[in-house]
Amino acid sequence: MDLLTAIRQPVTAELEQYKTLFDEALKHSDDYLGMALSFLKQRRGKMMRPLLVLLVAKECGEVNMAAYRSAVTLEVLHTASLVHDDVVDESDERRGQGSVNAVYGNKMAVLLGDYLLSTAMQQSAMTGNLHCVDVVARLGATLSEGEIAQLANIRQQIYNEQAYYEVIRCKTAVLFACCGEMAAVAMQADAAFVEKARTFGENVGMCFQIRDDLFDYYDDKQIGKPTGNDMREGKLTLPALYALTHSDNQEMHRLAELVKTGEATANDIQRLIEMVKQSGGIEYAQKVMEQYAAKAEQCLDAFQNPAVKEGLRQYLMYVIGRKA
Amino acid sequence: MDLLTAIRQPVTAELEQYKTLFDEALKHSDDYLGMALSFLKQRRGKMMRPLLVLLVAKECGEVNMAAYRSAVTLEVLHTASLVHDDVVDESDERRGQGSVNAVYGNKMAVLLGDYLLSTAMQQSAMTGNLHCVDVVARLGATLSEGEIAQLANIRQQIYNEQAYYEVIRCKTAVLFACCGEMAAVAMQADAAFVEKARTFGENVGMCFQIRDDLFDYYDDKQIGKPTGNDMREGKLTLPALYALTHSDNQEMHRLAELVKTGEATANDIQRLIEMVKQSGGIEYAQKVMEQYAAKAEQCLDAFQNPAVKEGLRQYLMYVIGRKA
Repeated sequence: MDLLTAIRQPVTAELEQYKTLFDEALKHSDDYLGMALSFLKQRRGKMMRPLLVLLVAKECGEVNMAAYRSAVTLEVLHTASLVHDDVVDESDERRGQGSVNAVYGNKMAVLLGDYLLSTAMQQSAMTGNLHCVDVVARLGATLSEGEIAQLANIRQQIYNEQAYYEVIRCKTAVLFACCGEMAAVAMQADAAFVEKARTFGENVGMCFQIRDDLFDYYDDKQIGKPTGNDMREGKLTLPALYALTHSDNQEMHRLAELVKTGEATANDIQRLIEMVKQSGGIEYAQKVMEQYAAKAEQCLDAFQNPAVKEGLRQYLMYVIGRKA
Repeated sequence: MDLLTAIRQPVTAELEQYKTLFDEALKHSDDYLGMALSFLKQRRGKMMRPLLVLLVAKECGEVNMAAYRSAVTLEVLHTASLVHDDVVDESDERRGQGSVNAVYGNKMAVLLGDYLLSTAMQQSAMTGNLHCVDVVARLGATLSEGEIAQLANIRQQIYNEQAYYEVIRCKTAVLFACCGEMAAVAMQADAAFVEKARTFGENVGMCFQIRDDLFDYYDDKQIGKPTGNDMREGKLTLPALYALTHSDNQEMHRLAELVKTGEATANDIQRLIEMVKQSGGIEYAQKVMEQYAAKAEQCLDAFQNPAVKEGLRQYLMYVIGRKA
């Protein structure tokens, strides 16, 4: 049994129920919109976020409809933000499939993302819980704040580790945090547990993004994106930030400036990646990720259901060790 | 006293309170995002939608915080959709100011629109009323459905008046309908009044869009957009649809096809506009608009407050007679 199957074990039936509700939420009678939504449904992905919602909810008892709606809400919101991110990043591919902007054009991608954002909000209202609505609305704002901060950072010449953490918290970790929080709120857990569930999610999310950024330093066909993709978009992530702030190698700084200004060639990027690797940037990012993982693991003390607890521990292991 | 001032008369103090809340909702400590939001706040516009919310709310008694939040919600949502529409339509101008995409680029415009959508949702949650949240979430979905349908219609060669009404209902009238509905719901009015307030708004909204589409046939510097702008975007509106379905003039049909395929020159568009005018398309659209106005006026029977009732009647007159 592979790791993902093991993680899903405690909520196998619940995942099926979730899938039905998700597919219903993305159904539409209009030909053109319906076609675009079906296109999105084809790339179901690994369902990491709904899985987290369902595992946390299961800890609190039999998964209720508000928790299912929370899982759908967050996955639809995530999908919306991916659709718009691909427009912003001018990406042609997503999970081995064409991006919406590549297949349907930028205009449709903007409108489809808007439709999905509103669908997420409708689903959150269906929880019947204003606290859940508020969590999602704040999350939506935070996700765009994160992307806007990243856009602004690209223009700046300063290399700032703190700004990096702030960006990945906003653009990735907060979504995982909300998976934990909404699940607990939907199940009417007490405030202390809500906080633990949120903190677990947030730290898992930090690991998830650092791991994602590490992929950018390795050539691997399993991962959808090619090496150096972030740098091509003008983004310097944790390994490079570490290397740049711990070395005054003039060539490395010059290459980093070219990345920032969008003038770096493929060779420049390859050279910078090698230099970052030689400076210990990879090991540093790994270490930081493990620190976040340790913080996440501490939160598991608040969980009682042995199957759920083990599922979440494996979930964390999967996130920090994943190959794609 | 001009007409707009007269319309605002019954809710002068309430509009000031609304402006304070709106400006607070669009404040942000982040430099870049804060700057873009300030840019948007400069173009306050005529506040047609908040004005409608406040007038309807005032009918029900002293305007409460839920109604103020509804007004902010709907204006922020409207602003979000304008920002994204300008990306989709590749517009450089909006209310005599540069569009967000023209000034900050497409990427920022997409992200800023997302931020605004989420802000609208947060404001709706602040009404403390799940019904209000649901109205807004459905509205958000409908607005994007309308834009998507319009995008799909542009590709089609059929000239269909019903499809036109459906598009303008989704992209414009439903927003006005929700102004009436949310105001009444926020003030805890009974279901019959909610329905009247919604129907008034919907019919006003139909008038608003038909009037807007009529502008496209006249050269007037007061109006932000140049003559023939809709046709340049491949859109055929009510006057042209009437002319095309009531004439088999081969030249007119050939020109309309060029508009649809985006191949029409400035001269083609000028020629088509003239032919539509000669075919009585303008008078027909005027007549249809007046029918919607009559439906709106009927709804005013449900209003008791004389100042509010007169304000709403003038509001309607303003919408059908406005020059910009």
